[in-house]
Amino acid sequence: MRAARIHQHGGPEVLRVDEVPEPEPGPRDVVLRQAGTSVNHRDIWLRKGLSDDTFQIPLPSVLGIDVAGEVVAVGDEVEGFRVGDRALANPYIACGSCHACIRQREHLCADIDISNGAYAEYVVVPENRLVALDASVSDEAASCFANTYITAWEMLVNKARITPDDVVLVWAGTSGLGSAAVDIALLAGATVIATAGQPEKIQTLAALGPDLVLNHYEDDVVARVMEFTGGAGASVVFEHVGHATWGRTIDAAASGARIVNAGLTTGQMLETDAVKMIMKQFTITGSCLGTMAAARGAVRQLNRGRLHPLIGERLPLSEIVEAHRLLDEGRVTGKLLIDVTS
Amino acid sequence: MRAARIHQHGGPEVLRVDEVPEPEPGPRDVVLRQAGTSVNHRDIWLRKGLSDDTFQIPLPSVLGIDVAGEVVAVGDEVEGFRVGDRALANPYIACGSCHACIRQREHLCADIDISNGAYAEYVVVPENRLVALDASVSDEAASCFANTYITAWEMLVNKARITPDDVVLVWAGTSGLGSAAVDIALLAGATVIATAGQPEKIQTLAALGPDLVLNHYEDDVVARVMEFTGGAGASVVFEHVGHATWGRTIDAAASGARIVNAGLTTGQMLETDAVKMIMKQFTITGSCLGTMAAARGAVRQLNRGRLHPLIGERLPLSEIVEAHRLLDEGRVTGKLLIDVTS
Amino acid sequence: MRAARIHQHGGPEVLRVDEVPEPEPGPRDVVLRQAGTSVNHRDIWLRKGLSDDTFQIPLPSVLGIDVAGEVVAVGDEVEGFRVGDRALANPYIACGSCHACIRQREHLCADIDISNGAYAEYVVVPENRLVALDASVSDEAASCFANTYITAWEMLVNKARITPDDVVLVWAGTSGLGSAAVDIALLAGATVIATAGQPEKIQTLAALGPDLVLNHYEDDVVARVMEFTGGAGASVVFEHVGHATWGRTIDAAASGARIVNAGLTTGQMLETDAVKMIMKQFTITGSCLGTMAAARGAVRQLNRGRLHPLIGERLPLSEIVEAHRLLDEGRVTGKLLIDVTS
Amino acid sequence: MRAARIHQHGGPEVLRVDEVPEPEPGPRDVVLRQAGTSVNHRDIWLRKGLSDDTFQIPLPSVLGIDVAGEVVAVGDEVEGFRVGDRALANPYIACGSCHACIRQREHLCADIDISNGAYAEYVVVPENRLVALDASVSDEAASCFANTYITAWEMLVNKARITPDDVVLVWAGTSGLGSAAVDIALLAGATVIATAGQPEKIQTLAALGPDLVLNHYEDDVVARVMEFTGGAGASVVFEHVGHATWGRTIDAAASGARIVNAGLTTGQMLETDAVKMIMKQFTITGSCLGTMAAARGAVRQLNRGRLHPLIGERLPLSEIVEAHRLLDEGRVTGKLLIDVTS
Ligand SMILES: [Zn+2]
Ligand SMILES: [Zn+2]
Ligand SMILES: [Zn+2]
Ligand SMILES: [Zn+2]
Repeated sequence: MRAARIHQHGGPEVLRVDEVPEPEPGPRDVVLRQAGTSVNHRDIWLRKGLSDDTFQIPLPSVLGIDVAGEVVAVGDEVEGFRVGDRALANPYIACGSCHACIRQREHLCADIDISNGAYAEYVVVPENRLVALDASVSDEAASCFANTYITAWEMLVNKARITPDDVVLVWAGTSGLGSAAVDIALLAGATVIATAGQPEKIQTLAALGPDLVLNHYEDDVVARVMEFTGGAGASVVFEHVGHATWGRTIDAAASGARIVNAGLTTGQMLETDAVKMIMKQFTITGSCLGTMAAARGAVRQLNRGRLHPLIGERLPLSEIVEAHRLLDEGRVTGKLLIDVTS
Repeated sequence: MRAARIHQHGGPEVLRVDEVPEPEPGPRDVVLRQAGTSVNHRDIWLRKGLSDDTFQIPLPSVLGIDVAGEVVAVGDEVEGFRVGDRALANPYIACGSCHACIRQREHLCADIDISNGAYAEYVVVPENRLVALDASVSDEAASCFANTYITAWEMLVNKARITPDDVVLVWAGTSGLGSAAVDIALLAGATVIATAGQPEKIQTLAALGPDLVLNHYEDDVVARVMEFTGGAGASVVFEHVGHATWGRTIDAAASGARIVNAGLTTGQMLETDAVKMIMKQFTITGSCLGTMAAARGAVRQLNRGRLHPLIGERLPLSEIVEAHRLLDEGRVTGKLLIDVTS
Repeated sequence: MRAARIHQHGGPEVLRVDEVPEPEPGPRDVVLRQAGTSVNHRDIWLRKGLSDDTFQIPLPSVLGIDVAGEVVAVGDEVEGFRVGDRALANPYIACGSCHACIRQREHLCADIDISNGAYAEYVVVPENRLVALDASVSDEAASCFANTYITAWEMLVNKARITPDDVVLVWAGTSGLGSAAVDIALLAGATVIATAGQPEKIQTLAALGPDLVLNHYEDDVVARVMEFTGGAGASVVFEHVGHATWGRTIDAAASGARIVNAGLTTGQMLETDAVKMIMKQFTITGSCLGTMAAARGAVRQLNRGRLHPLIGERLPLSEIVEAHRLLDEGRVTGKLLIDVTS
Repeated sequence: MRAARIHQHGGPEVLRVDEVPEPEPGPRDVVLRQAGTSVNHRDIWLRKGLSDDTFQIPLPSVLGIDVAGEVVAVGDEVEGFRVGDRALANPYIACGSCHACIRQREHLCADIDISNGAYAEYVVVPENRLVALDASVSDEAASCFANTYITAWEMLVNKARITPDDVVLVWAGTSGLGSAAVDIALLAGATVIATAGQPEKIQTLAALGPDLVLNHYEDDVVARVMEFTGGAGASVVFEHVGHATWGRTIDAAASGARIVNAGLTTGQMLETDAVKMIMKQFTITGSCLGTMAAARGAVRQLNRGRLHPLIGERLPLSEIVEAHRLLDEGRVTGKLLIDVTS
């Protein structure tokens, strides 16, 4: 089968579509045939070879973490899936043996692994990381869902525990992760303020239905959030950008706000003023993907027809280099779908 | 009566013991005659005149936030206290009208005020900020309790919600706030790791009963915490120092830890590595004093005989300049009691 | 002005429309001119004179707890409202002095009072129980909102803390309270199963949009809930009926479910099998109206256009006896609006 | 080896000490040699053959759920234990496949199994249900710990989430489960009210250190709790008796209280007044044993020397019939230790 791999770290051009053997299922595994997959920032960090432990992989490796498709083979001990079913895979792998895991807190696993291999026609996945997909879900939506929606679900539903009482500020609401956050926050009944940076993205964002849309380059976001909330600020901030927005995240947060953070794309070191932290008594929580509980919750709503990934671009697997180039340059709106069949 | 005031900002020497009128109670107020009070870092920040809004006061002002004593006069509408009763005052004043307050979340008030005036023989306090003290509580303990214990209670009991399942790391466990935290964490059944920086303080700290005592100048605190916890790290970190310990706070925190922070004594800007925040999925929460709920909870345990402020120094009100000098220079172990009667 | 009062306890016929003086505002009060109000089960319990302490009132009394309208007069100390504004009142009055109240847990006040007087052209309300209404909200919706939506909000958002991860079972989803619960649970992204008892009510209920509609007289509700949830059961049960549904509530609840209960219309004594309680480890929580936090949360969504009270009947104040008769006989779908202007 | 089994259901006399083969470890199992074990009410329910599903077992069966001892053999794949180590077993077995389990909520497993077999010299246990015991823990304490302490820990620490702010009422504080609850509640810094029914038990109970001891036969428990709490009531009730105390549990509960319930020894059907439930807005939560998280938490404190099972009686395995007779008749104070070596 065809799969896009890196043989060395570097720019988009290190990606190569290779012919590799089709995967065989182990006794508890399922093989999925994919219609598509999608690119994520994590793929770029792996391609570049960032130095943190969490970004180390063997070479060559098939990149990609968004897996969904039709079951074409199952191992002998698989009980929950049959050939012909559809399923979506959670890339989050809890270690099962750290202090968090043995206390049934897999969502806080100290030794998470994240499964790669999605840039391929077929992918093998252990049954226990799969969630069943209804027939009503389109291939396109399924291919562009796993990473962004499970990550945003864990952040908003499980970590921030948003309710209809919250005002949620989402930075970069037309990015893959940001648009998932807008979708989930609206589903949960929250009042949503979202930002984008270019006129056409502003328009795309407005169509998603947030209560207020801001331009994070031109508007004074903090002042506008304060004005919209009568001086209170946002009770939840969905932070996934990093250095470039962090100061405004702190200033736009309400007293007692919950700031959830999965961000480092614009810089890893985040500086926080302790006086603001103490006087506003807000909470900052880091988050990383999500466990099967988050995956099941999010997919239930996908199956229910209430979540709609924003897909801004479509490319065949043969143009994976171009796909990475677009993401590198910030030129993708929502998700970039990769058609693995062509 | 005698009271210690500042007429201008500056070093310890700006404090002057003045003769001022005894306070009269308004209709809902209570006048307390104090045996003693205590000095706190906040008093120093006010004395120095830090620029943040929260540190602005009119001049001249009587400093001091630890108020406790015997009721000597009550206003016409006071119902809960009579002359002869004993009471302790909470210096935290919620505004009552911000978004947090009108949603019954006074602990998250966005416009907290903090009551000064404790460096005096008599203090007037609205009834609704008082908690009754039992006869069994010593004057010394009552005088050295309010700020540190209410602050630590809010951080550990209300914000971090510690349980006997937690391992709590307390920095500077012989400081006023740190020793209150050690006391409360042990009361709550947690396993406690505490640090100090000099041999005699190490000994004082060990006598408080923590499970592990470390020297934060000489020991590799992160390595020792990891070793003691079998590689897990501390599930709660009590941070009240600021810049000097922040990096080690992040590294010693367990996956999923709750870091509670009231600290800025060693520097206000706190830098956090987003990759660590995301991979360990910890939570950082700022905290500032505590509401009447925290005050009532802490005083109940004081009345029950389960909390014991660490008092390392005693000076008369006439030596308030020396008292501030000792606190400025970090030469106080635990609390510095001020005898306001001499 | 005209107001409907009871001068003695008894059947619907004890209600009389009397001419009474228009209310004058105290210094912190607001006078509202109403377009309408609504009838609630509590009004019936007061009219009948149930023996529990909570149902005692002086005679004669104007009944009714749903107050909303236009501001026509304000007291001297009122700051947040002006003549011409629109507002909705929360009938819940926390005592302010019980153990719950002094710990800032007004939602758990042990000595709640509930404000009557809504069956009238003008109503006086302390400013601190009012929430501002947007111009976009219809008079009809405002008149039929306070009691049912604040009660259901407190139960679902504050007590059960529902998320999009929940499956919520709502009994009697076409009643006033039940339809508010369906509306709020859908707003919060939950999967909703709701019941009704007659064909036309089933149709009305289906139009509200729940995921599954059941007939609580004809369907085996427990079996259908189990089937729909793949054997798990409902993670939240909204119980407001009492004796008639309690056994099925217990059986339809998932392991670890949260059952929230405001119900006693069909019988006050609820019998629970301890083995089921222990093996399923569910939680039962009683709830009673809701504080200003709940009122503000619910009204924010009303102002946002996301909540829509179900109004099944409209009668003038002059037919208040007939209105009570209809509610007594269970013949009202959703809310019964009373036009107080005619 | 010797083991006490039942071959049929009935009175204490159906227990027989049989000679049975020593257990062999499977690949992931550990074999423990016990010094002792203990009897629990669950053993009696199994012996009698109660009709609920959860009490069904094959015959003959070795009864007993309190397992602790020295490791004498390990399976090939065991990594965490070696011969010579000491360990304690958690009898709670989550199914791993129900809706709760696949969402990482094993503590809410809908299909719990509970492991029997403790009335024996040797017991085989899967490694993943074992917690390491320190050398400092006595054999007696280890043998009388698992069921009662893990159950009470789950109820108080995980379900009720007690803090030093709580007043906990523990019924029958000299029973096995009740004395564990008193021990844990005091460890967690709560104020504890506990009851007993006979003069000598009252004395034993007072020695455990609760803040107030009541006689549940002679005292008006509700009135005394209200008096002690200044009219507030208990913020947490530890209910494990059932029908005989339930009404007083409801009446002694504070507004907003958390009632945790593992009780049915005196009757299975619990009747609750809905008006009280609604006006006091309390929460009732069923609980059943506890997961490995609870087991690890409790054993950490046992290892730390902070928990001390109350052992009122000691009998050899050969007198297991007499042991059951004593428990049947309510004549045991605290735990009844069974010496399995004689
Ligand atoms: Zn892990
Ligand atoms: Zn405020
Ligand atoms: Zn109250
Ligand atoms: Zn299970």
